[in-house]
Parts: sequence; C-alpha cells; structure tokens
Amino acid sequence: MDASVCPRLPVTRVAILGLGLMGTSLGIALRRRGLAREVAGYDLAPGVAARAHGCGAVTEVCGTVEDAVAAADLVVLATPVLAVPMVMAACAASLAPAAIVTDVCSTKAEVVRWAEELLPAPEHFIGGHPMAGRETSGPDAADAELFVGCVWCLAPTHHCDTMALAWLRELVAALGARPLVLDSVEHDEAVAAISHLPLIAAAALTLTAVSAACADLARTLAASGFRDTTRVASGSPRMGRDILLTNREPMLACLDAYLAQLHRLRDAIAVGNADTLERALTEVRRVRDAWMAS
Amino acid sequence: MDASVCPRLPVTRVAILGLGLMGTSLGIALRRRGLAREVAGYDLAPGVAARAHGCGAVTEVCGTVEDAVAAADLVVLATPVLAVPMVMAACAASLAPAAIVTDVCSTKAEVVRWAEELLPAPEHFIGGHPMAGRETSGPDAADAELFVGCVWCLAPTHHCDTMALAWLRELVAALGARPLVLDSVEHDEAVAAISHLPLIAAAALTLTAVSAACADLARTLAASGFRDTTRVASGSPRMGRDILLTNREPMLACLDAYLAQLHRLRDAIAVGNADTLERALTEVRRVRDAWMAS
Repeated sequence: MDASVCPRLPVTRVAILGLGLMGTSLGIALRRRGLAREVAGYDLAPGVAARAHGCGAVTEVCGTVEDAVAAADLVVLATPVLAVPMVMAACAASLAPAAIVTDVCSTKAEVVRWAEELLPAPEHFIGGHPMAGRETSGPDAADAELFVGCVWCLAPTHHCDTMALAWLRELVAALGARPLVLDSVEHDEAVAAISHLPLIAAAALTLTAVSAACADLARTLAASGFRDTTRVASGSPRMGRDILLTNREPMLACLDAYLAQLHRLRDAIAVGNADTLERALTEVRRVRDAWMAS
Repeated sequence: MDASVCPRLPVTRVAILGLGLMGTSLGIALRRRGLAREVAGYDLAPGVAARAHGCGAVTEVCGTVEDAVAAADLVVLATPVLAVPMVMAACAASLAPAAIVTDVCSTKAEVVRWAEELLPAPEHFIGGHPMAGRETSGPDAADAELFVGCVWCLAPTHHCDTMALAWLRELVAALGARPLVLDSVEHDEAVAAISHLPLIAAAALTLTAVSAACADLARTLAASGFRDTTRVASGSPRMGRDILLTNREPMLACLDAYLAQLHRLRDAIAVGNADTLERALTEVRRVRDAWMAS
C-alpha cells in the first residue's frame, strides 16, 4: 500500500458489520474520540442496527453488507466468528481497492485463513482481537471505554501490507488500547489457556453446581467466589460456541492439560496428601499474584 | 441453657482465637457496632495479635489460648480448620461453664464432630461459617464491612441448647449478616459445589496456564476473564489445604461430577458438535443468571 493511499485519521467512513457488544462499543469509541466521520452499521438481526444508531455507535444504518462496505476506508467484522466467512464473501465484491479490513473476533488463525481465501486484497486484512470483554452482550451493553488500556492483538495475513498494519496500530492506540502484533496461531494457543479454557471451566462449574443433590442450598450459599469464578459463563452462547469450534486443537490440548492437573489435585485429596495440596496452592498463589501484578 | 444465663448484647468479653482476615474483621465489626465491651485476641504467629490490636480488632492481646478464653462469654475460633481440634483441646479446661463457642471455618461437619468430642459443654457450641471471603489474607486485609449482607451459616451440635443458638443468631444479625441454621453435613456438600470446587478449578486453571508452551504470551494477554476465574486461587494456601482435607468425600463427589461435565464438553469440541456446545452454553447462562439474580 502506498503511504499516500493509507487513510488518515479521522477515517472518512468506517463500516461495522455486526453490532453486538464489541461492534457497538467500537462505534461509540470511534465517534466519541473523533476518529471516524461516518460509521455505517449492519447487523443481520432486525432492529439491532437501529439500537446501535440510537446510542450513537453508527451514523448510518445499512440494510445490506454491500451497502455498508461501499466506499468504506475501514471495514470491521464484529460478528460471531463462524459468521465471518459468509460476511467476507458478501463484502468481497463491494470493497474499495484500498480498504483496510479487520475483525474483533476471539480466535485468529481461522479468520486469517478465511481472509486469505475470500478477500480480494488479503494484504489489507489484519486480524484483530481486543482483550476486553464482558459477560453481557448486545448493543445495549456497549461501553465507549471498553477498550481503554486493554491489549489489542493484531494478527496480519502472510503478505500483509506493512503500511496498513502500521496504520491500524495507530488507530488502535488512538482508541486507548495497547496494540500487540503477533502470529495468529500463537494467539490462538495463548487465548485457549487464558480465555477459552476458563470459559469451559466456568461452564462445567455451573452445570456441576446446578446438578448437585444440594443445588437449592448451594444456590442460597453461592457468594462472590462462585459469582467471579463463573462470570465468563454468562457470555453469549453463540459466541462461545463459535470460539470453541474455531480453536479446537489448542482447546483440546489445554483441556487435556487441565484434566491432568485436576486429576493430580483429586488424587492428593483422595489420599489426604496435605503436603502436595499445600505446595500446589502455594505455587498457584505465587504464580497468579505475579501474573496479576504484571 | 437458662435464658437468664445467656449473655446479653453487648457481650462483656469475647475471645477470638486466630487473627487472620476473618478473626480480625470480626473483632473490628464487633467493636464498631458496640456488640462487645472487651475483645481478647490470641494468635499463634508472633506479632499478628499486636497488628490486630493496632487496627482496633481486639482490646487485649493474650499470650495463651487459656488467658484469652478465661471469663469470655463468647469464644470464636478463627484459625485454619485443621488447627481447630488443638485449639478446642487447649481451651476446654478454661472455658466458663456458660460460654458459647463458635467458629468461622469453611467446613462444618468435622468441626461439629470435634466440638462434640473435645468441648466440656458441646451443647453450647454452634459451628459458624460466614459466606464472606477475600482472596487476601491476614489481619491487614481486615474489613469491618466484610460480613454485611452475607449469609452466615450456623450448624449446631446434635444436642445444641436452643437458647444459645437463638442468641448467636441475634448476634450474627446484629453484625449485619443473614443467619441460616443448617445441618453441618448438608452445609459441607453445598459449599463443596459453590466454593471448594471453584477453588480447585481456579488452582488447576492457573497451573495449566503457567505450564503452557505459550505461557509468556498468555501472561501478556491475560485479562479480566482470567483474573476473575482464578481469583479464589490467591487465598491462603494453608486455609485452602485444610478446607479440602476436611471436606474430602463431598469434594471428591463434586470433582467427579465436574470431570464428567468437562469430558462431555471436551467430546463436543473434539467432534465439532455445535448443537451440544450451544445448548450447554445456553443452559449455563440461564442457570447462572437465575442464581445470581436470587
């Protein structure tokens, strides 16, 4: 990409495809920070784009993907990840030649692969993943400050245009986030451990508690520990499903490592091995405190 | 217990044995609310009782368990649970005949059993468990408001004096908590599901993440989801160990149910079963949202 064709900030026209929590929050943040003149919004579900318009996330509600992306300098895919290939295919013919395309999905290797297959100029695609989320979903949960301070992963295609990447880094920083360029496969392995495994763990904890013989009493006693440990399980089921299905190999590896750790702790409880339990919990506290401090 | 011997509020003298987060928070709460004239404090670790004295949790630092409990109307055991039998044995000979004894430990069946064996008047013992906690520990983490609004479980001995129980309910309510009288075994089954299993799940999640090949990147990307899901794993290792060792049967049953749920979800990911995953996550969100709303 010639530097002269790279859009300047503010962007003249951004298209956001998918107006859930992430898409709507992004629209509001771009508008409030004066980073986009026009924001065209599209959502498959009737009425969602109008709600995003109502809260100032988009300046224009579009009835089709094609209308939204036409003449856009930047196109952001903010749908559940399994909808991405369909949306890419739908917008391919209407994209401006110099348009930069990104996404905000939680898995990156598949998304980058789809971009390389389906987009007319894959060198202008950079996969994106802001490490910010909520257990709430939909446009009404949107928050202009959602991205402030968060790490925003940028996973480029194999022959990515360096100017396009530099420009997107600048935009992400202007949104208050911390851009981090990384490989899509490494991204997926890391988020399997710190984001998708916690989702499975929280889901299984909730299912276990509700199926317990003492579930009614358990519900009465559930306090902040249960609330926090299971918080991520209240996110969008569709989004969670898509994440798990597009990150299968890393997830299975993580789950197997997790099951092995659980069996080790179970064995220590079964035989009453106080030393193993205390050493494990001491190590866990040390590691977690160090991670949280960094 | 004759109603006339039951102590009135404020209590003349409370002894708190163990001045970590719970014991110190209780001392401060009793003092601030004018519920105790004197609070005698004892802790095995040198200097801890002095710190509790420094923050107003105790009015008197005692060098032995015997000194602390002498002439106390109410004795509160706030040690890690495996220290309880030793502390009970140490105070047995010095307890005033009408003294009410309780504890604030996280498991109840063993504690009630020990009280029945070791205390001179087990009918004056009521096991206690305020469903309030923090991932921080020690007297410096104490909080006078820790118990406000929380459920405070009361698990009496088999031949518990009803006047003593009624009196402790009143005190717990005066601390701003919600007393709930229950059976010690049912208590332990319920907290295994909503408190101790989440501890094991969080510990194993932390160990899995730190052992992953991509641990450095994972640490950089770890955001609020990982922080919240693993929060309970930063508590006191000694306390956690004791909880797991005194709640073994319920914990093993819960862990096995949890492992079965994890295997079910793993299988669905392995074969790419979108329906099973979406149905499971939808059920999880429904259940969790209902639990949190109640």
